[in-house]
Parts: sequence; C-alpha cells; structure tokens
Amino acid sequence: MVTFTNLLQVVQHCDKYPYTVTNDGARLLLEDNVCVGTILPPVLNELVAYNQTLDPCPFVICDTAVHFNEHITTMDERTKTVETLMNHWRTQQTFSALAGWRNELYAVYGKDGQPAFVMERAATPLFGISTFGVHVNGFVLDQGEIKMWVARRSLSKPTWPGVLDNCVAGGIPYGYSTKETVVKECDEEANIPESLAQHAKNVSVVSYYTTSQYGLQPETEFVFDLELPLDYQPTPKDGEVECFYLWTLDQVKESVLRGDWKPNCALVVVDFMMRHAYITADNEPDYIDISYHLHRRLEFPCPKIALAIKSL
Amino acid sequence: MVTFTNLLQVVQHCDKYPYTVTNDGARLLLEDNVCVGTILPPVLNELVAYNQTLDPCPFVICDTAVHFNEHITTMDERTKTVETLMNHWRTQQTFSALAGWRNELYAVYGKDGQPAFVMERAATPLFGISTFGVHVNGFVLDQGEIKMWVARRSLSKPTWPGVLDNCVAGGIPYGYSTKETVVKECDEEANIPESLAQHAKNVSVVSYYTTSQYGLQPETEFVFDLELPLDYQPTPKDGEVECFYLWTLDQVKESVLRGDWKPNCALVVVDFMMRHAYITADNEPDYIDISYHLHRRLEFPCPKIALAIKSL
Repeated sequence: MVTFTNLLQVVQHCDKYPYTVTNDGARLLLEDNVCVGTILPPVLNELVAYNQTLDPCPFVICDTAVHFNEHITTMDERTKTVETLMNHWRTQQTFSALAGWRNELYAVYGKDGQPAFVMERAATPLFGISTFGVHVNGFVLDQGEIKMWVARRSLSKPTWPGVLDNCVAGGIPYGYSTKETVVKECDEEANIPESLAQHAKNVSVVSYYTTSQYGLQPETEFVFDLELPLDYQPTPKDGEVECFYLWTLDQVKESVLRGDWKPNCALVVVDFMMRHAYITADNEPDYIDISYHLHRRLEFPCPKIALAIKSL
Repeated sequence: MVTFTNLLQVVQHCDKYPYTVTNDGARLLLEDNVCVGTILPPVLNELVAYNQTLDPCPFVICDTAVHFNEHITTMDERTKTVETLMNHWRTQQTFSALAGWRNELYAVYGKDGQPAFVMERAATPLFGISTFGVHVNGFVLDQGEIKMWVARRSLSKPTWPGVLDNCVAGGIPYGYSTKETVVKECDEEANIPESLAQHAKNVSVVSYYTTSQYGLQPETEFVFDLELPLDYQPTPKDGEVECFYLWTLDQVKESVLRGDWKPNCALVVVDFMMRHAYITADNEPDYIDISYHLHRRLEFPCPKIALAIKSL
C-alpha cells in the first residue's frame, strides 16, 4: 500500500492522468467526431491486428483516431461490434482487464449525452471510456458530531480486496436514475431498506481521470449523503463487503492518509469532509488544489440522466 | 439584463473565458517563470509605451511574456513598481478599470503560494490577476425547508448597482484567515454579530474565469454556509446593501434565471443549491457541466491560507 503525508497526495494518487498530454494514443470517435475514449498504443496495436482479419473491417484506424467503419451506423451495430471484439480478446486472454469480466453493461455516451452504444464494464479501460457511478456516504450525527459508516471490501473481490470503501457504491445501469441506483445498491451491498435509502441526497459530483494496470479510467461519481439513525447498522448482504465500521472523521482522515482506501473512494471521503467543513481553507494548505482534483473536467460527453428518466 | 433558459447558461455567463486559447496576450511571469497573470494586447501596448519612458525599464517585455526587470527583486520593489504604473495610468485615465479605484490591496501569489507583491484591487483585471474572496450563504431552516437570505446591492455601488448578491461577500485582506474575513464582512455588510458569524462553515470553493469591460478576472471564492436563527434578520450597515430578502429556493432559482444576480454570486447560489440537493443529477440535465463551471482549474498559484495564518 501507498501511504501519504498530506491530502493533496491522496487525491493526486487517484486523479493521476496528466493534465497536458501530447501523445496519448488514438481518440475513439463517433460519426460526428465526438470523442468518447482514448486507445493507448498497446491496445491500438492489437486493434489493428484484429481489424485486418475481418472484411469489411469494423474500424477505420489511423495513428491518432479510431472510427467505426461506415457500415456500422446504429447503436445496436456499435454495441455488437465492440462486444465481438472484446469477446475475442477475452478468449485469447489478450488483456488482463478482461479477466475481471462482470457481465455488466455500461452505456457509452455520445452527442448530446445520448447513449451511442453499450459495452462490458470490465472492457471500458481498454478504450478509456468515461464511466459513471454513485457513491453514498452513510453517516450519523452523534450529539452533533459526524461519524461515518466505512465499508471494508470483501477479501474475495477481484479488485481492491480488503481495502476501505464508501458505505455503498455502484455503477449506474442504463436507464436507471441515480436515486434508483442508490436504492438498489443500498439494498444489495449494505442491507439498507428503501425506506432509509430514499433519504439519500445527491449533494455533489466528483470527477477524476485515473489509470490502472487495465488502462485509462476517466470516472464521474454522483455523491450522495445518507444520514442514518443512530441505532441503525448497515450489514453486508451480497458478499461485496466484509464489514462496516462507524468512525469519527479523525479516524477516517487517518485511514485515508495511511492509504487504506480504494483511491477513488478516498476522493469521495475528502469531498465529504470539505462539504461538512472538517477540511477548510483555514486548516488545509492545499484546499484549492484538492478541490480541483475532485472536480476534474473530463473532455467526454456526459449523460443527461434527468432527461433520460423523464422520457421513460 | 441577460435572461437565461437554463442553469448551464447562467454559469457559462460567468465562467466565460475560453477553455482553450491560442493567443491571449502576454503572460506575466515572476523570476522563476511562475505565471501570475495575463496581459491582453490593449494593456500590453500601453505597458510597452510606459516602459520606454523609464531608464532602467521596470519590465522586460516580449510578445508572449512580461517579466519584472532584474533590478526589481523583492516583494516591496514589485509592489512599488506596479503601484507607480497603475497610479500613472489612473492619472492619465488610460483604463476605465482604474476609475473604480478602491484603495484596497490584493496579494498576488507566486511560487508555493507565497505573496509576490500586492496591488490595488481595481487594477487586477488589467493584469488578469487571480483573486480570492469569501461568499456567505445566509439561510434559515423553516420547518425543514431552506430559505435563503438574498442581498440587493446598493444602487450607489460603482459595480453592479441594484442587482442581487449573496448575503455577505468580500475580498480577503492580506494576512486574514477566511473565517476572519467572513466575520468582518458579516459585520460591515449585514450587521451580523460575531457570535452568529462564527458559526459560518467553509463548505466549498467556487472558481471561474470571467471577463468584463475591465479585463480578465480569474477568481476563486471560498464559500461559507451560515444558518441563521429564524427570528433573526440581517440589515444593511455600510451602505453596500440596499435591502435583504428571505426567499425559498424556488424564488431564488427563478431570480437566477431572470438574470437578476451578479454573475459570480449566481454561481455561489447554484453551488449552494447543488450541495443542498435542490439541484440534482436526476432533475438537472446539465448537472455535470454545471459542476465543471463551478470548479474551473485556474493555472495560477493559489494562496496557502492555512500556512499563512499558522505562521502569524
């Protein structure tokens, strides 16, 4: 594990993709030249090799850009094309990212925030696709003092086993509102009933651009605060969580600096501590820089969830 | 006044300096090439003319950069150099920005967030200097519903007379903590006693890059929420405020869309409405884009207020 001497290091450890990149591979473009991802050279090389085996080629590839070929024009066709490719790479064990296949579909948003296609969650880092989730800060007010419910991830999880996590978190399934996602994940991960989960409040959004052994991960997390009753205790349900702790913010901050947290969840915690005035400009020298790393502008289209759920 | 059809337009009306600029004048650099400002061509031309009248020249100027000349090395010397220049331009009525001279000194922060020099507040847009202030959202909880205290600026104010403003706001005098600034401004602008103002909580920071007739204004506002007692009413004191209104968030949002607010204060209000879950990803289609405009990364050094007040 990495330990940190200050909170700026904590957020930089997650939001670590350089801000100015001169040569970062090819951009994945839709018909209207909307950029929805970034393909680094190792993946691009494999994509070129794969593309040559098919006639007509599914992709048009140059050094700086990848397009779908002109015969692929609908959402279903783009989805099928990417699915076939990723299944091929999975079978060939080309990339370790695909060993963690989840059978969970993420939408890839294009022009005007409309979904352009959907793809397997585990494959998104190979194309540097921007992904969206919800994170819930469960907390109590104990005689005026905030205490936070902290989850320890299951030791059997494929990613980040045994490290600390937000009380509840998860990706947004296509067609779900953020609140519906929160209610679903509260039940699945922490056994929190809908009657309580409905009180979760969407109070922030955290965005960052991280990288891992699997590829590029520009990510956006809708942040919810959920005040729980003092006598209520979340409990593991679906095996994602080992156990829950109820900690003071001093304890939480110490654990963050010890590097005990999944990096992106540490960002959500830091955002919580800023919004609740535990971290302030008067006590944190890097206050502004930390805020920048919590709110990175990602140059990819965003979903318009409010419009999507209104139209259902 | 400008009216808006949605909140994204509201925030873009303030955070309006382009994100990618190819030719935006000369950068104002310190000895270590730290960039502390931007000088647009109209100001640069006048600076070149002024510089030629002095021997030795106070500045070294090329098309893309302005440095202090090598005989100017200390904070006092930089301060004196800029003061002499701005007084000259003020006397000559070269720039309308200087008609609003305030006799209020702002620090210009350089390497490691240390003040490199101080200069008259009204002159900062001519050099595109990054400035820092505090804004206070005064609010009450009325049977669980948030109502916000809204200030109408005095009709006699030189800038933005008669428009809506946050309950309390002000620049941070050199050497003040953000909380001390809040307490001072609460007293001066709204007659809020220290016993109440001390409860203001620093819960956010809003940054944006705006432009005006006066020049370039990259600005950072430390945001405080101050819950006031239901039976308490802020009142004008120093003549900056015409009157205060207590409005529901529906009323506040309507007034924001009507364009009744000072643009940067509208950003602080939108930030408040997001943090209090009045604006959410499920009801606002541009939720993420709006958040980006509230948290623009400004490529200038930031003050380290926490270190400065600790060292006093």
